[in-house]
Amino acid sequence: MSAFEQLMAHARETAALDQIAGRLGWDQETMMPRGAAPQRAEESAAIAGVLHARRTDPQVGDWLAAAAAPDEAGAAQLREIRRSFDRTARVPADLARALARTTARAQGIWAEARATEDVAAFLPVLKEVVALRREEGQALAQGGDLYDALLEEYEPATSAAQIAETFDTMRPRLVALRSAVLDRPMPQRLEGQFDENAQMKLSRQLARSFGYDMAHGRVDKAVHPFSSGSGLDVRITTRTNPADPFNCFYSTIHEVGHAAYEQNIDRAYLLTPLGRGVSMGVHESQSRIYENQLGRSRAYTGWLFGQMREAFGDFGIADQDAFYAAVNTVHRGYIRTEADEVQYNLHIMLRFDLERALMAGDLTVDDLEAAWNDRFAADFGYQVDKPSNGCLQDVHWSVGLFGYFPTYALGNVYAGCLYQALRQAVPGLETDLAQGETTAATGWLADRVQRHGGLYAPREVIARASGMEPGPEPLLDYLEAKFSALYGL
Amino acid sequence: MSAFEQLMAHARETAALDQIAGRLGWDQETMMPRGAAPQRAEESAAIAGVLHARRTDPQVGDWLAAAAAPDEAGAAQLREIRRSFDRTARVPADLARALARTTARAQGIWAEARATEDVAAFLPVLKEVVALRREEGQALAQGGDLYDALLEEYEPATSAAQIAETFDTMRPRLVALRSAVLDRPMPQRLEGQFDENAQMKLSRQLARSFGYDMAHGRVDKAVHPFSSGSGLDVRITTRTNPADPFNCFYSTIHEVGHAAYEQNIDRAYLLTPLGRGVSMGVHESQSRIYENQLGRSRAYTGWLFGQMREAFGDFGIADQDAFYAAVNTVHRGYIRTEADEVQYNLHIMLRFDLERALMAGDLTVDDLEAAWNDRFAADFGYQVDKPSNGCLQDVHWSVGLFGYFPTYALGNVYAGCLYQALRQAVPGLETDLAQGETTAATGWLADRVQRHGGLYAPREVIARASGMEPGPEPLLDYLEAKFSALYGL
Repeated sequence: MSAFEQLMAHARETAALDQIAGRLGWDQETMMPRGAAPQRAEESAAIAGVLHARRTDPQVGDWLAAAAAPDEAGAAQLREIRRSFDRTARVPADLARALARTTARAQGIWAEARATEDVAAFLPVLKEVVALRREEGQALAQGGDLYDALLEEYEPATSAAQIAETFDTMRPRLVALRSAVLDRPMPQRLEGQFDENAQMKLSRQLARSFGYDMAHGRVDKAVHPFSSGSGLDVRITTRTNPADPFNCFYSTIHEVGHAAYEQNIDRAYLLTPLGRGVSMGVHESQSRIYENQLGRSRAYTGWLFGQMREAFGDFGIADQDAFYAAVNTVHRGYIRTEADEVQYNLHIMLRFDLERALMAGDLTVDDLEAAWNDRFAADFGYQVDKPSNGCLQDVHWSVGLFGYFPTYALGNVYAGCLYQALRQAVPGLETDLAQGETTAATGWLADRVQRHGGLYAPREVIARASGMEPGPEPLLDYLEAKFSALYGL
Repeated sequence: MSAFEQLMAHARETAALDQIAGRLGWDQETMMPRGAAPQRAEESAAIAGVLHARRTDPQVGDWLAAAAAPDEAGAAQLREIRRSFDRTARVPADLARALARTTARAQGIWAEARATEDVAAFLPVLKEVVALRREEGQALAQGGDLYDALLEEYEPATSAAQIAETFDTMRPRLVALRSAVLDRPMPQRLEGQFDENAQMKLSRQLARSFGYDMAHGRVDKAVHPFSSGSGLDVRITTRTNPADPFNCFYSTIHEVGHAAYEQNIDRAYLLTPLGRGVSMGVHESQSRIYENQLGRSRAYTGWLFGQMREAFGDFGIADQDAFYAAVNTVHRGYIRTEADEVQYNLHIMLRFDLERALMAGDLTVDDLEAAWNDRFAADFGYQVDKPSNGCLQDVHWSVGLFGYFPTYALGNVYAGCLYQALRQAVPGLETDLAQGETTAATGWLADRVQRHGGLYAPREVIARASGMEPGPEPLLDYLEAKFSALYGL
């Protein structure tokens, strides 16, 4: 076997083990008996150790030095293997261990602090996490920008400066739109109780309506919805709340977007470095365009209204227009994961600026809560009422995920570009969606974006698919048009 | 760290990875989407490769040479690690790969042959499996008995000659008992349809009645019931058939016996070589004593009758005595897994003698079906009607499990010894069981057998627990007494 073939055989086994590790995470959130947690920690550490050893195996370095790519896909495989190898090699083993240990501990402390509204209890361990991630960023950056080095793990070939420029364009227009529509009266809100089994049943129907392949996936319940796995086994979870069926339905559609990306990657890349979504931003572009531009459209919600009437009878909303408005209400709220399309990106910008400042050393952990609350009041127009609605709401920082948040908003930006191109490419889109029919739209996304997996860099795949240089204007235009019409501005 | 400590740290990680591999198997039988099978094969191969590499790591040999055990448990840990290391080291890597490849293929061919009643279609690949396992047996035996070397994997410190002697004692008494009771009229048989959800609900209640710890386990459905995992995460499966609730209930109780063994092992052995059942025979002794001596007793079935009346209303059986008889009916049947207590061991002896002859080269694969059918007629008193009811019924030989079958009957023998001692130790046993109360009995088994895990050799743990040298008499006495009374002999 050539060096390239040996490297690929090794990478395939690593990818298979990585799938196992991912499924262990799925099991933990869906099936694991509650008393199994201490043993599971040992199991997770063991498989993580195996993966780390494989990724830092000096033999990989030797193969990389000798390997010649046979084609474009082969070159992309080498690029991804090299990126992973270089990143892992740059972080000293002691630091990696300290990060794993500290973040595992920090997650528990964060959960307790959030439950008791006790910011002070969380700060000491957050300081440790921040210090360790800064140390890691320095090791990774090798003289370059520390935050960029962290960002590269989630969104390769993108810089914080580029993101900041995009966000600077977005912020004033989003704040203005939020001011114009927030708290304006809407015709009707959803009220009442909705049977949870019926929610799950309709959820599966919605998943199928978006092309989710049940022969290569399954839908279960979890506390926090997620998608897990690549290739032939991509599972999603959703949640139910009797008072809030939209949460269940749109969590499902969102996760179907993620899952469809993984399911639709070219089978030639199965269990290889190219056989998974290329970045968190591109991933989020798929989940968000499924959920929002398609799933919360007037046309699709018109169809969904009929499905809900069939499942639940008359639930107090009179017609499709009122239902569309109820799905898209812009209301006060503190929690990012529950935010509407208008306010969601404001949440991300807040976190991006604060975590960049933390990593740069321009903001101390002690000043984090005050900085959060000031910025929230400025952008959202109302005050944070308690830490669990403010700087303690997200798990991310406790587990060291600095550089991850901006990918959520990048996903929305990418989704805006794709949606503009999609409307051109599929002229009958609204007629389709009004019948719960997404085949043309999801087929276009599968062909233009999803099938490529890791072949192209994130911005490149979006540019190729949408025919434009990715930027925030299409998203902003879409949001302003949608919500101006909805609120009769 | 000392060599012993390094070895134990390595063994702990290996045990954790082994748990992961086991859970992957559980997932495959319970949760996996059907289209995921090709990817799962890659994943299973990858984790098996990791485990094999760890088990044959020359470093383990070095540590073993240098390690000194600090105590009795440490010495047992070393014994188990050495046994596994020596066995794996003796099998050439090429042979191990050929076995894995051939048995994976053979399993599919066997399933197809069984479905089409086509013995001839299965024989060529079975010849390959037999040849490979003989080759492996020779490598393992190093001049000793080939079959013993295979047996040692499932039942250490036991010989085929010893088992043959036990079985020779059992066979005439079981054949005589079978002749006396088979086809004699019984008061009532179970008829009608039983809701499958209600079966699962009552199953979980029965599992709890036998002390299954749901905080460290769960009950799901699978085509073939099994127990999976050790320590803090031990899951069982059962199956439902509307016409046959006893299959569901007694599969559950059987698997609870296996699971309780794994759950009740001393926590000090968690994720170590001692942290799992010591042999298949001892494992089966627990599943069988839960299922039969306790679960099919007059006392427990009396309580179960009441539970079934609560769950299903009047189901056509008049009283506890008739119900006890219905649970214990001895009737014609070809399938080992569905056999009653009287005929079950006859199934095992048939397989043991045939597979020993195959491994010795005294029986050819071509003559297997005829040999099976002749022996069946002699021991059971009726003729095999089709291959799926004969030599194609079990998966074992297709996957190369030679040496495994006798452990089922050894389990029954061990259960007989344990039950004799248990009745002495727990005088109120029948009063307890009549109330669905097993705490004293399962507590005694946990303390005498289960908690020791792999500390003592199989016959030793049974001897220590029962206070007698393990032999078949207690089992035979129990069976003759039970079925003579039931059938009014």
